[in-house]
Amino acid sequence: MLLGLAPLLPSAARTQAGGDPLPSWRDGPAKRALLDFVAAVTAEGGPDFVRPPERIAVFDNDGTLWMEQPIYTQLLFILDRIRALAPQNPVWQEDPLFQAVIAGDLRAAAAGGTAGLLRLAGAAQAGNSPEEFQRIVTGWLATARDHRWSRAYTQLVYQPMLEVLALLRARGFTTFIVSGGGVEFVRAFSEETYGISPHQVVGSTFAVHPGEQDGRITLNRQPQVDFVDDGPGKPVGIARHIGRRPIAAFGNSDGDFQMLQYTTEGPGRRLGMIVHHDDAEREYAYDRDSHVGRLARALDEAPRRGWSVVSMRQEWMRVFPWS
Amino acid sequence: MLLGLAPLLPSAARTQAGGDPLPSWRDGPAKRALLDFVAAVTAEGGPDFVRPPERIAVFDNDGTLWMEQPIYTQLLFILDRIRALAPQNPVWQEDPLFQAVIAGDLRAAAAGGTAGLLRLAGAAQAGNSPEEFQRIVTGWLATARDHRWSRAYTQLVYQPMLEVLALLRARGFTTFIVSGGGVEFVRAFSEETYGISPHQVVGSTFAVHPGEQDGRITLNRQPQVDFVDDGPGKPVGIARHIGRRPIAAFGNSDGDFQMLQYTTEGPGRRLGMIVHHDDAEREYAYDRDSHVGRLARALDEAPRRGWSVVSMRQEWMRVFPWS
Ligand SMILES: [Ca+2]
Ligand SMILES: [Ca+2]
Repeated sequence: MLLGLAPLLPSAARTQAGGDPLPSWRDGPAKRALLDFVAAVTAEGGPDFVRPPERIAVFDNDGTLWMEQPIYTQLLFILDRIRALAPQNPVWQEDPLFQAVIAGDLRAAAAGGTAGLLRLAGAAQAGNSPEEFQRIVTGWLATARDHRWSRAYTQLVYQPMLEVLALLRARGFTTFIVSGGGVEFVRAFSEETYGISPHQVVGSTFAVHPGEQDGRITLNRQPQVDFVDDGPGKPVGIARHIGRRPIAAFGNSDGDFQMLQYTTEGPGRRLGMIVHHDDAEREYAYDRDSHVGRLARALDEAPRRGWSVVSMRQEWMRVFPWS
Repeated sequence: MLLGLAPLLPSAARTQAGGDPLPSWRDGPAKRALLDFVAAVTAEGGPDFVRPPERIAVFDNDGTLWMEQPIYTQLLFILDRIRALAPQNPVWQEDPLFQAVIAGDLRAAAAGGTAGLLRLAGAAQAGNSPEEFQRIVTGWLATARDHRWSRAYTQLVYQPMLEVLALLRARGFTTFIVSGGGVEFVRAFSEETYGISPHQVVGSTFAVHPGEQDGRITLNRQPQVDFVDDGPGKPVGIARHIGRRPIAAFGNSDGDFQMLQYTTEGPGRRLGMIVHHDDAEREYAYDRDSHVGRLARALDEAPRRGWSVVSMRQEWMRVFPWS
């Protein structure tokens, strides 16, 4: 940075190193809220100082860190896997729900609602160990491609959010994913993609049963979901897994409402931020009427709750790392 | 260290800094196993090298990091709390189990078995939020004293194990507690006592229900235990919470058997270690016949499974930080 220009920049945008830690963010209200918050909670001796162990930041995944349209990536994985496993499961041919998936009729498959979805999810993802399941997911991610850009799903992550993760970690935060998705699905790529260790991923879980085979411990993933980390489940997942109330939360839908609420209702300075998908050209535009990532109540209540709403179209100069 | 003496010391005991990282450990088989293991998995280019994110070490708490005799510390907390809450709960006076606790008759209280214990635990520990509960535990720990040494329980931690935690972290490991105790009880002191963050504590859990009061999110701890992190539950807790198989595990009882097994059955170099309490003079001597921390099967199978058994009497020069 040319030192002569520094006085022209908003002070919060200047870092100790002199570089902009959020180069993909346009100078707007969201970027200023982010930088002001980080400056305040890390200013030793200041009124809003938070000691590093309490600098906990939580991020939703689908639609906040990576793309979720036109359909959740994990659901695409489940459908692919049902099709791949169909030859070994001839009974599925007699089940209309599985028939629809195998035939590629997503509308008929979706007609089963949440119950149908959970049945598909269980059939596609159970019957293995957590280690085996992660290998299966990693293998799928290596070859599966998005239809719109023909990119790997792990490339459809938001560059501005990667910069937020890096900035917060550089300033002593511990970053967590708190996802409605399956915890082991997200763990399969979180470290390589986001620099977030598996133990810093909170998510929905299938029951895991211990057993023994040939004198060795086995862990067997069951087809029953035993924890749904979405909506009011997110604060529960945070309390159980992290054991500390976050001071910053990032989400994009009403499924993050209670996580944002739990985070920002704590004492002291807090940050709540909502990624608003309003960019049909570079990504997607959706909120109130979307079947995926519906955003209505959180959008309505954001102003009075002090949550920042990030306009993707206006505040992000770049959407994906490769764009 | 005098450089002239270095050749006389076992090579593994010398660190880069020149100091002994385990000064409370006598030079014996356990110390050598520890240092050899750490040297092997951190030797870049070596056959046993493990990259840092996979350097996961898990520690049981009761009897491995802190004292568990003559009775688990959390149980003492539960009994104290039942007595403290008794005036507000007059119905307890009509219940023989609670009567026994209030009267200080531990034998009668113990007669209720596990079911009775879980009932007491629920009554003593539920009805609050995770944050409130941790404050209650912190307050109790600040004043409660052990009968034998009149010390705070957080001082009855094993100095040699604190050194192991510090050594592993200095060599790029992430250290976790995997305890049969309640996760929020252990989190109340793990950071200050062991340098282990709340999110790196895995333990047994009570159900937590989300709610709303005066328009704010509440989390309510229920009297029902919904996960028991002991025995076969430990590998399940590790898989769910850590999401990666550890490469080193430390325990002291048969409740750690499956954790040790799960850890050491993984591929590559592994370390399994059992603290054997054989020192009645400086601490306690117990194993097969103990009602707390029973150690029989793990002791019998340790040799053929390659687990190190640490004789507290012979291998620890110091037991507590203040002794
Ligand atoms: Ca989302
Ligand atoms: Ca123990």
